[in-house]
Amino acid sequence: MHPDQLTGMIDRINSFNATPGRGITRLTFTPQYEAARRYLVEEMEALGLTVYVDDIGNLFGSLKGSDPNLPAVMAGSHIDTVNHGGRYDGVVGTVAAVESARRMIREGIKPRNPFIVAVFAEEEGSRFGQVMAGSRALTGLLDRQTLYTLTDSDGTPYSEALDSANLKNINRCPSPANIKCMLEAHIEQSVVLEQRSKVLGIVQSIAGIQQATVTIEGTANHAGATPMAMRSDALAAAAEMITAIEDVGSRRAGPSTVATVGNIDCEPNVSNVISGLCRFSLDVRDSDAEILTDAVSGIRSLCSDISERRGVEVTFTEKPRTEPVTLSRSIGQIFEESARKRNLPYMWMPSGAVHDAAVMAQVTEVGMLFVPSRKGRSHVPEEFTAEEDILAGVEVFSDAVISLCGGS
Amino acid sequence: MHPDQLTGMIDRINSFNATPGRGITRLTFTPQYEAARRYLVEEMEALGLTVYVDDIGNLFGSLKGSDPNLPAVMAGSHIDTVNHGGRYDGVVGTVAAVESARRMIREGIKPRNPFIVAVFAEEEGSRFGQVMAGSRALTGLLDRQTLYTLTDSDGTPYSEALDSANLKNINRCPSPANIKCMLEAHIEQSVVLEQRSKVLGIVQSIAGIQQATVTIEGTANHAGATPMAMRSDALAAAAEMITAIEDVGSRRAGPSTVATVGNIDCEPNVSNVISGLCRFSLDVRDSDAEILTDAVSGIRSLCSDISERRGVEVTFTEKPRTEPVTLSRSIGQIFEESARKRNLPYMWMPSGAVHDAAVMAQVTEVGMLFVPSRKGRSHVPEEFTAEEDILAGVEVFSDAVISLCGGS
Repeated sequence: MHPDQLTGMIDRINSFNATPGRGITRLTFTPQYEAARRYLVEEMEALGLTVYVDDIGNLFGSLKGSDPNLPAVMAGSHIDTVNHGGRYDGVVGTVAAVESARRMIREGIKPRNPFIVAVFAEEEGSRFGQVMAGSRALTGLLDRQTLYTLTDSDGTPYSEALDSANLKNINRCPSPANIKCMLEAHIEQSVVLEQRSKVLGIVQSIAGIQQATVTIEGTANHAGATPMAMRSDALAAAAEMITAIEDVGSRRAGPSTVATVGNIDCEPNVSNVISGLCRFSLDVRDSDAEILTDAVSGIRSLCSDISERRGVEVTFTEKPRTEPVTLSRSIGQIFEESARKRNLPYMWMPSGAVHDAAVMAQVTEVGMLFVPSRKGRSHVPEEFTAEEDILAGVEVFSDAVISLCGGS
Repeated sequence: MHPDQLTGMIDRINSFNATPGRGITRLTFTPQYEAARRYLVEEMEALGLTVYVDDIGNLFGSLKGSDPNLPAVMAGSHIDTVNHGGRYDGVVGTVAAVESARRMIREGIKPRNPFIVAVFAEEEGSRFGQVMAGSRALTGLLDRQTLYTLTDSDGTPYSEALDSANLKNINRCPSPANIKCMLEAHIEQSVVLEQRSKVLGIVQSIAGIQQATVTIEGTANHAGATPMAMRSDALAAAAEMITAIEDVGSRRAGPSTVATVGNIDCEPNVSNVISGLCRFSLDVRDSDAEILTDAVSGIRSLCSDISERRGVEVTFTEKPRTEPVTLSRSIGQIFEESARKRNLPYMWMPSGAVHDAAVMAQVTEVGMLFVPSRKGRSHVPEEFTAEEDILAGVEVFSDAVISLCGGS
């Protein structure tokens, strides 16, 4: 690996950013996104890969295998970000995939299986509101019609944004049946590797996720003239629910359950009026499907009790659930073997964050490799992973790609 | 009184509205506000009043007294609204003042003291963020420089909005020393009159109010990958504080204390990121100054405990406090006498809402009269007061104006 080339690619991708100085914002199909994608196209074409885009907006770069009838080894991640996000989420995995191709070419390694670099569209869901939209559409979990009619905050549909992205070389997306396995490298986005002084995390499972919008209808009224006992305060009810949700995540559910309220909006949202309407997001995750179900139903029941006692109405609108997945043990063992040989400290671990790999696991064998996140911070401008850790990750990752491609 | 004229004025003022069909929005110095003010100018000039505006943007209509050396009786309220507010808050008191002048003129009553109709600017604080800005500037509680540099949500300063309002007849504002007393009619904005089947409320006291902005700094982080025990979640901390604040209002402070959080904003405010920053409003009121002080300091101490336990930072930014005020007993007795004569059911009561009258009470004798609000609702589109109740209120109100002006 050439460290300069690696950090050069990361820097270049992050030079395409809608919010310089305030983290990285590169939403799917925006001009910044398109510029970053164009850069990757050039980079992959320079390596001799066959580059094409599918009708979802996913980008692929394909390296021929010596036996073209064998199913492909796929590796990749995404380059879209949350608003004011970090430099590494998605980018590390994208660069690891391109560098794996570069290494094979540079070292004269001929893969037997075809190798495909994949850059999935709209992983974060930050523009069109559904996470992992690109990989979910590829695997058929999300139908094209639903995908195309998703709209961004300006009302622009996915289909229109995709059209205006000025794509060339539109091709059929790879059929899941022709994919042997999928590998993704990613930053950990938590503190476990750092706290245990490990450079690599070999992912055993990816948490399932249930998101929902919780809407509370109370009665807007004058904040000065309405006695406390006569209120139906939507925000006060939401506050009690948020505390209960936190308690489910911390104590009542499983040891690795997380439950988060990250978004809240009230109406009329002014200081001298009791809140009449409050909407907040719910995000519950666990790698055990049953614990996840129980946690969500526990939260629903607690919120119902609170709303009944307070005389407000509560409505749950659940998004499609992402099931927890168990990743390939044999691919994990390939990572493990490489880490041992290279003398890199590693551990097996679950992932609390969901990834395109979790979606791909519905249709193929999946392996996932984590590198540490400083202080566990992610989805924020302070997101950071040390260069030597990324380098170590890419080395082990490309070892596995070469092994799975039957490279020689 | 002519009921049609009364409701005609209310309808006409409310025809100037930025949000038709979604309540009344008429923010200070906006085109809707200016149109309503122009209508009042025409209405008062048609009655023969001398109309002028002060350098704050307060509107006055003056009726000569037979003894011009006597201090003026002032009556009025405001015509600005909250966002998506109601038809009666402020408008009833404005109309009651104009109708008092009309009645004297129609009935040939000659006041000895001058009579001044006052329409105070920016009572709600909905545009420039400080409640009762117009009356507070008039009485010197708010200095001109501070007033002029207040900005709206677009960054427009008060001074610029005032200039663009195209005022004519700018005059010195009435000196507090030349005001004998100030009267304000208002909707109750609570349920007490309705529940006790009274048509009129004679206000004894107006609650003091302490508003503040509470800012919580936590650590934004990935909602899936960050274990519950390792979070500094600003919104979860805010939720616990909001519940504690409600508890102070409901149980811990005085029997008539109210404590409200009506506004909340979080960053980055997305479902899959733990909240790193949360700001919410605090509004605490009581008619007893000591109870108000204790309630606010109790809230501050509870919030400090919560933030310390959770490892987040909390900052209180308090707005200028409005002191509780006791209103004029003798003016109340004039209202009482009129209500008795007219056979209208009335009661003495405190006001939980603050009003321009509370500010004017710092510099002169003040009387305030309430009419019922259906279901106590106010600051919302459903705000409603029956026409016959408004009519009864205006009759008693104008009786008091005539009595205090020494009309004959």
